[in-house]
Amino acid sequence: LSSAGGGPSYRLAEIATHVGGSVEGSPDVSIRGVAGIEEAVEGQLTFVANPKYRGGLATTKASAVLLAPGVDCPERIAVVRTADPYAAMMRTLLLFDPGLPEIPAGVHPTAVVAPDARLGDDVGIGPHVVVEAAAVIGRGSRIGAGGYVGQGARLGEACHLYPRVYVGRQCVLGSRVVIHAGTVIGSDGFGYAPIEGHFHKIPQIGIVEIADDVEIGANACIDRATFGKTSIGRGTKIDNLVQIAHNVAIAENCALAAQAGVAGSVRIGTGVRLGGQAGLAGHLQVGDFANVAAQGGVIGNVPSGATVSGYPARPHREAMRAEAALRKLPELLRRVRALERERDRNEESNP
Amino acid sequence: LSSAGGGPSYRLAEIATHVGGSVEGSPDVSIRGVAGIEEAVEGQLTFVANPKYRGGLATTKASAVLLAPGVDCPERIAVVRTADPYAAMMRTLLLFDPGLPEIPAGVHPTAVVAPDARLGDDVGIGPHVVVEAAAVIGRGSRIGAGGYVGQGARLGEACHLYPRVYVGRQCVLGSRVVIHAGTVIGSDGFGYAPIEGHFHKIPQIGIVEIADDVEIGANACIDRATFGKTSIGRGTKIDNLVQIAHNVAIAENCALAAQAGVAGSVRIGTGVRLGGQAGLAGHLQVGDFANVAAQGGVIGNVPSGATVSGYPARPHREAMRAEAALRKLPELLRRVRALERERDRNEESNP
Amino acid sequence: LSSAGGGPSYRLAEIATHVGGSVEGSPDVSIRGVAGIEEAVEGQLTFVANPKYRGGLATTKASAVLLAPGVDCPERIAVVRTADPYAAMMRTLLLFDPGLPEIPAGVHPTAVVAPDARLGDDVGIGPHVVVEAAAVIGRGSRIGAGGYVGQGARLGEACHLYPRVYVGRQCVLGSRVVIHAGTVIGSDGFGYAPIEGHFHKIPQIGIVEIADDVEIGANACIDRATFGKTSIGRGTKIDNLVQIAHNVAIAENCALAAQAGVAGSVRIGTGVRLGGQAGLAGHLQVGDFANVAAQGGVIGNVPSGATVSGYPARPHREAMRAEAALRKLPELLRRVRALERERDRNEESNP
Repeated sequence: LSSAGGGPSYRLAEIATHVGGSVEGSPDVSIRGVAGIEEAVEGQLTFVANPKYRGGLATTKASAVLLAPGVDCPERIAVVRTADPYAAMMRTLLLFDPGLPEIPAGVHPTAVVAPDARLGDDVGIGPHVVVEAAAVIGRGSRIGAGGYVGQGARLGEACHLYPRVYVGRQCVLGSRVVIHAGTVIGSDGFGYAPIEGHFHKIPQIGIVEIADDVEIGANACIDRATFGKTSIGRGTKIDNLVQIAHNVAIAENCALAAQAGVAGSVRIGTGVRLGGQAGLAGHLQVGDFANVAAQGGVIGNVPSGATVSGYPARPHREAMRAEAALRKLPELLRRVRALERERDRNEESNP
Repeated sequence: LSSAGGGPSYRLAEIATHVGGSVEGSPDVSIRGVAGIEEAVEGQLTFVANPKYRGGLATTKASAVLLAPGVDCPERIAVVRTADPYAAMMRTLLLFDPGLPEIPAGVHPTAVVAPDARLGDDVGIGPHVVVEAAAVIGRGSRIGAGGYVGQGARLGEACHLYPRVYVGRQCVLGSRVVIHAGTVIGSDGFGYAPIEGHFHKIPQIGIVEIADDVEIGANACIDRATFGKTSIGRGTKIDNLVQIAHNVAIAENCALAAQAGVAGSVRIGTGVRLGGQAGLAGHLQVGDFANVAAQGGVIGNVPSGATVSGYPARPHREAMRAEAALRKLPELLRRVRALERERDRNEESNP
Repeated sequence: LSSAGGGPSYRLAEIATHVGGSVEGSPDVSIRGVAGIEEAVEGQLTFVANPKYRGGLATTKASAVLLAPGVDCPERIAVVRTADPYAAMMRTLLLFDPGLPEIPAGVHPTAVVAPDARLGDDVGIGPHVVVEAAAVIGRGSRIGAGGYVGQGARLGEACHLYPRVYVGRQCVLGSRVVIHAGTVIGSDGFGYAPIEGHFHKIPQIGIVEIADDVEIGANACIDRATFGKTSIGRGTKIDNLVQIAHNVAIAENCALAAQAGVAGSVRIGTGVRLGGQAGLAGHLQVGDFANVAAQGGVIGNVPSGATVSGYPARPHREAMRAEAALRKLPELLRRVRALERERDRNEESNP
């Protein structure tokens, strides 16, 4: 299987020009796609960035390879020399990028759009979409099949909602927001007042506000605020199956890896990264550019720039030291027993 | 952004009456919404429950505030005095609660409802909903856009399914059950018999039974039983992205926070709370009113009333003691080395 | 509630023949379903495999029971004797298995199928399904209500997609693949190049390739590769809410329990098992038949056949030893203090 399918093809010389490299071998090789060195087939371009993959050149089926200066290559494979083959590969990917899946402009006849919803120019509404009363969808935005835009919700320009995305009532998205399939924006926060052993629901009447250039993965959940708003800052990226609870505020340019969870009212600074399955307890503050390692369980504030891991999360170095010490613990037990035996012998001989 | 939008507004005196407080300042201030002290804008009411937020009174843009007796406030802000500002805020939220999103009574023309499905009075079936053969939907229940009610499934009265909820065949919901978007009730349990290295599926022919007044968050999953039933007790609340495996039995008035996971055949007592990302291994029993801390990994039974944390989960105090000791471990290593050096010196001098 | 509903019923003698056992009591008892010993009602069959459940025979309401030789039973209950009651129960379940929910052959009038999509014989397309251009759906496959099959995606024969499954463009499924409700196949990988504090998206132009006989639970996510493919091997079973990142390769006959997460480019061998909520960091290799315990956090390669647990995950025995030592740590601290006091006394007396 190739990533190219019936897609575009390029002469190798075109690709070399695109990435600022130089061709060794035929500049006319036709490249129809890109792939890893082991998976590549004839007609595809591959790359070697990490020296440990150089061995793959002997057996790869690729027709051409992006290579750093000084790396040898069998003659049967054409080469594009470039100082940074990884960066060149990323630039080449753009040539083959099919872009977002097409949702044509206009309203599909199976969609159900409220008469007072306001759709901008060049908006595309896919099959079986529902747009409720007073919703606003900005110019160029596209809503994939089976999507739902609640009452009074507002989307900015050039948003792309993959199929089956839910945006609850009154929620607000900026421009160029991309949301993958199955994600839920604006579910109720998990708020109950326990009275005599029963949970009484606290109405969740706030909203979710998502800034420009945010991308959110598949089957994630962002709860609306109890009051006020849950907010996601500009340029922040959120992976699949992430949970963001009510009244959380996440600043700009953060990255939250898959299955991370953020409890209620947490405040996360700029440029913060959460590893996969990391969890943050409620009402914490995480400073700018802090990192939480994968599976880290944070139960206190995290200072700016800190890297924390483990449960309860603490500075990563300290966690690793404690971990190393833990491995020495069985031996330490033996050493203390030896000291005790010696003491006991000494006491016997010097009573 | 306010939580009020084009919603209702109240005179401050009305709110004071509603919460049983007294006005200081103009009783005629018009309140159009509520917000946190930092986010509030003109026309909104805020509150100070925790003394550490009192400083916000100097800068808040709110027009009025719920305050405990004896707390000073700038003159520009009207005050409602009340013994418990937090409880008063919760009561005020009810005034602005828009209620569940409206799904009109009747069957939307794009819905597909089997001829032998039985719909009670005042039932609302949204756009693109599917109701399969022999399903029963009780009086006043509403099914949001794109929902699915499987063959023979039964919903009680006044249930509210947000858009894109899936209820598999034969599953049973009580009355006043609320389920948020994307949740799946009645997926197959994860049951396979490994025979000679291949997994053979064990048919999952049981059901899910959900009692009255349960609320379930978004994109959660509750598997049907292998046989018999997976059951969720009355009044239990389940957050987003929670996983409940086959044959689990959860009693009344429990709270399961987001991303918690409960493996097969676990039995959970009354009033139990699971923190976010907590996990329970299969076939365990958790006693009444027990608590599992966030990220706790439970691999044995939990007694009634216990609070456990960590992995493997143990009593929270013991876990915290072990954790504190772990931090002293590098120092302990040094102390034992010092004792050993001293012994070695003593042995040299007293051979 | 019984698992049988209006389903089939069998004479006990028929069941005994089916499981290769012999009847004690009336062979004509009519069995209309199966259930656990505590839940069973009249007309149902139960079983006792584990001796600790034998006590249930005194009170069960079941009409018949599968029992091993030598186990006594009250006369009111008919018995099927069999060497392995558990296996017999699993075989009996097959008798009552209603099979996959029916999706009739043909294209539902509310479905939207591109004119150039290719549907094999006996394909069933449910209500509100979307099949995009150039998609191929093999003979006998069924797509449940609200499903989405992207442009150029290809499904093999006899696949069953429960309602609301999303298969992104160009993704490839083998034959007899079963996917439960809400699952997303082919969301974009979480790939961004951070440049001057902003994340720039790396186009995700690869695919997901799923081999024959794979089953995937509800609300799971499998990301498409950056280039090349994310692959799931033949016969592998994946539970609810699991996350598989871009370029992961999972071999045959693996089992991934609920909420497990696998980061980018991980390679997992044959027959591997991941416990619930287990997490694997990026670019690791997990050898054949390795096991990761529930909640295990793997940050290095796992050798073939190993069982690892904890965070960071290490061999399970070593983890349990460290855990046991950790419990002795507070006591060890006391013992070292005692040694130090003794040394100090000795130094005072022998200065």
